[in-house]
Amino acid sequence: MKDKQKNSSFVLHYIQIIRNKICAKLNVGKKLTSRSEDYSRWYNELVVRADLAENSAVRGCMVIKPYGYAIWEKMQLELDKMFKATGHQNAYFPLFVPKSLFEAEEKNAEGFAKECAVVTHYRLKTDPEDSSKLIVDPDAKLEEELVVRPTSEAIIWNTYKNWIQSYRDLPIMVNQWANVVRWEMRPRLFLRTAEFLWQEGHTAHSTREEALQETKLINNLYADFAENFMAIPVIQGLKSESERFAGAEETYCIEALMQDGKALQAGTSHFLGQNFAKAFDVKFATKSGDLEYVWATSWGVSTRLMGALIMTHSDDNGLVLPPNLAPIQVVIIPIYSGSDQLVTISLVAKKIMKELSAVGISVKYDDRDNFKPGFKFNDYELKGVPLRIAIGPRDIDNKVVELARRDTMEKKLVALDGLSQQIQASLNEMQINLFSRALKFRDDHITEVNNFDEFTSTIIKKGGFISAHWDGTFETEEAIKKETKATIRCIPLKENPQKGKCVYSGKPSNQRVLFSKAY
Amino acid sequence: MKDKQKNSSFVLHYIQIIRNKICAKLNVGKKLTSRSEDYSRWYNELVVRADLAENSAVRGCMVIKPYGYAIWEKMQLELDKMFKATGHQNAYFPLFVPKSLFEAEEKNAEGFAKECAVVTHYRLKTDPEDSSKLIVDPDAKLEEELVVRPTSEAIIWNTYKNWIQSYRDLPIMVNQWANVVRWEMRPRLFLRTAEFLWQEGHTAHSTREEALQETKLINNLYADFAENFMAIPVIQGLKSESERFAGAEETYCIEALMQDGKALQAGTSHFLGQNFAKAFDVKFATKSGDLEYVWATSWGVSTRLMGALIMTHSDDNGLVLPPNLAPIQVVIIPIYSGSDQLVTISLVAKKIMKELSAVGISVKYDDRDNFKPGFKFNDYELKGVPLRIAIGPRDIDNKVVELARRDTMEKKLVALDGLSQQIQASLNEMQINLFSRALKFRDDHITEVNNFDEFTSTIIKKGGFISAHWDGTFETEEAIKKETKATIRCIPLKENPQKGKCVYSGKPSNQRVLFSKAY
Repeated sequence: MKDKQKNSSFVLHYIQIIRNKICAKLNVGKKLTSRSEDYSRWYNELVVRADLAENSAVRGCMVIKPYGYAIWEKMQLELDKMFKATGHQNAYFPLFVPKSLFEAEEKNAEGFAKECAVVTHYRLKTDPEDSSKLIVDPDAKLEEELVVRPTSEAIIWNTYKNWIQSYRDLPIMVNQWANVVRWEMRPRLFLRTAEFLWQEGHTAHSTREEALQETKLINNLYADFAENFMAIPVIQGLKSESERFAGAEETYCIEALMQDGKALQAGTSHFLGQNFAKAFDVKFATKSGDLEYVWATSWGVSTRLMGALIMTHSDDNGLVLPPNLAPIQVVIIPIYSGSDQLVTISLVAKKIMKELSAVGISVKYDDRDNFKPGFKFNDYELKGVPLRIAIGPRDIDNKVVELARRDTMEKKLVALDGLSQQIQASLNEMQINLFSRALKFRDDHITEVNNFDEFTSTIIKKGGFISAHWDGTFETEEAIKKETKATIRCIPLKENPQKGKCVYSGKPSNQRVLFSKAY
Repeated sequence: MKDKQKNSSFVLHYIQIIRNKICAKLNVGKKLTSRSEDYSRWYNELVVRADLAENSAVRGCMVIKPYGYAIWEKMQLELDKMFKATGHQNAYFPLFVPKSLFEAEEKNAEGFAKECAVVTHYRLKTDPEDSSKLIVDPDAKLEEELVVRPTSEAIIWNTYKNWIQSYRDLPIMVNQWANVVRWEMRPRLFLRTAEFLWQEGHTAHSTREEALQETKLINNLYADFAENFMAIPVIQGLKSESERFAGAEETYCIEALMQDGKALQAGTSHFLGQNFAKAFDVKFATKSGDLEYVWATSWGVSTRLMGALIMTHSDDNGLVLPPNLAPIQVVIIPIYSGSDQLVTISLVAKKIMKELSAVGISVKYDDRDNFKPGFKFNDYELKGVPLRIAIGPRDIDNKVVELARRDTMEKKLVALDGLSQQIQASLNEMQINLFSRALKFRDDHITEVNNFDEFTSTIIKKGGFISAHWDGTFETEEAIKKETKATIRCIPLKENPQKGKCVYSGKPSNQRVLFSKAY
């Protein structure tokens, strides 16, 4: 008898512990830190609580959770379609780069050497002092160390060497979806992680012009993708020499602006000239029989785009997703008391689901009985589901549902009749609205300044992009960076040439460039 | 003047070198080694010459070329659809596994320790003795070594620990598309490579029954995929204890038979019991409040399937692809002399292309002028394009085209009118024919034997699967392996229990099992 009591109090005790764990996990009742309070904390909390990603047991490496990965898959699918539509094919190259190949292109090697994970051994063995442990087997030391790819130019150009003999073999237009590793000292989920996922395009051309054209084509493709698919406005431009990809002659980029006034580089497309062809001795026979070095480009976007997505659109209630990227576009929540009401509502909900699925809208019906509607509302807001339909018994009598939009938090009653058209229209509006809203914010945060006082006070008080004249020297760039932490994000392509004086040195300048603090 | 001559002879010399290189590359005029001559060489040549994959500068790692990768993408797409349709979601876990996690599940660690690539350092630095070289920076030694994942149970179960508190958190049904590394001493393209691509599913369940059901569901899914999508007949079965996945309680598998009479394990689905839950202390609260260890499965198929595909269907002319997997399903080749004829033919060809594309058939028109039709015929045969359409000027007059089928090498004239239906029908027939052909071969190569003499002579003279009674002991299994190189491929699920005597020991046995030499 006593034992039984003990057991039952033991069970109750455990139930309590578990309830606490669940509540802690779901952070029930706890609001997200607001952006104005602490932007950085808001971001970190949002990523974890919206179930996008989390830190792993491996320093600097993240786990991308199913909900976050589903968003990344949507990006992949769209980009892949765009790459293929412009004549690119996918392939796969080794994860490892032998050190001797890695060091062949000097600038590239120098640029990445400090952040390389290095494989030195190919076997573990049982620890002779503790048979439950493993140690690195000293007899299995590699003759040549292998670098875990931080980027694949070296291994790929060493391969292209065998693929290219004549102009007939060109162009090669290959893309790879892969993981890469760059050892990060201050990692942050999605923004800077030791391992990240990306695509890297590597193309080979017979002329400088063709390679340059490819570099620009891809930068345009990235801008198109960011703006029209992700609803993130970007500025296209060129990097200054110090911000260029190590080994590139010119780096084109798309730069986005986050809500805290800091810029984020969202994609880069590099014109590599003949640097890698020379490093790996890749020549081709022209039509006239001459031997020439091949021209190259490389370009990539990564899971960093997840960070850009979050920080462009989201708010204090959580994630806000453009409908294009939402794994669940519409959620239906029944408001009921008692199972009879639930049955009636479910019939209507299932009819709606069928209609929406038929027109390609992804929809979820959440009829879980162990969570209250209010809890569900908060949860789907946190996860950025674009549209929420709530259905109560009275709504059914009135042949309406309540439709709530995540971006504006607007609610309205909508007739059941014609609902799927209404939803399609709302999703389209939302996609456009998110872009317009972000564009307005971005444009409101581009400030033209004409002297260094204006520069510093804008950086401190307003943030955002600062459009300023620059004398084109590395020294000035460094001095400004040191004094303000702002760097040149890009030399915008669309900026008109305009004579002026460098905001820092007073020396002549031909064009304004964009400065900002950056992620 | 002399210089000019020198230059021009230099150019001619180079043109010759390049021509040789191109010819060598294309192996013009050189037939593939036949299967009967040297099966293994036939395979290696085919993989390279059909542009599927090649060896890289990294020992044991391959480059998957665009044509090979396009086939892999088709497998991925179909499998991914099947996984999602059965309730699985994709996610992504780190490439690296800290050594202390890796060693937590003892059997698993022991199984993979001997083939692990190990990261020990996170930085390179300039060689003080040669500034053009890099060396591993001894100051950047990791406190704990990182294993490049050979499989991800350890890192994933260490993560699941934080995801699972209650039965409400279960099941977790996650899949990951990733690269893994297992150091191979005798690598072969697609079949055994140090790095390979795969998908690995990792699920967590609240009951033993549910986990077992998942293990079987996936094995059925794999069999369905292999047979109905890849046209590869497979036998479903259980692995003997010695062939089981390290850390599994039961391994289900699908086994295919290659044309040389050797078996190939095409996919495995593991019931992991509570082994990983215990190793990583993953418990959940049941409905009644008890704490129990979680039940697990894991399952995977890899780029090894490319090897199975090649060795099931291909012939002495090259690759043979089931239409489902062909990046190009139909190729159109114009037979013409003079550009007038080409123009006329091209008009017809483009009309056909449009019709085929409209019904979802992938088609290529090869009107390259610098290659003869015969060369093109051979090249597309080598690459396994299922259907070839040849169009000459007389065909156009007669309103027909010549249609050639890659599997049977049959040619026939087909009316232009109704061509796309005819092609659709031929593709369907071919998909079915390839499966039937492979099934007949496989069934013709299952031999029931009742004593060890029959066993050894069958292995030597015929190969294939040997159905024999086995006493269930490890000792017998090892002895048979030692004497014949045949291993137990599986204990077939569909085999009826049947009393008998072990073919080796004479001891009692309850079921026949399948032996074979294997890849």
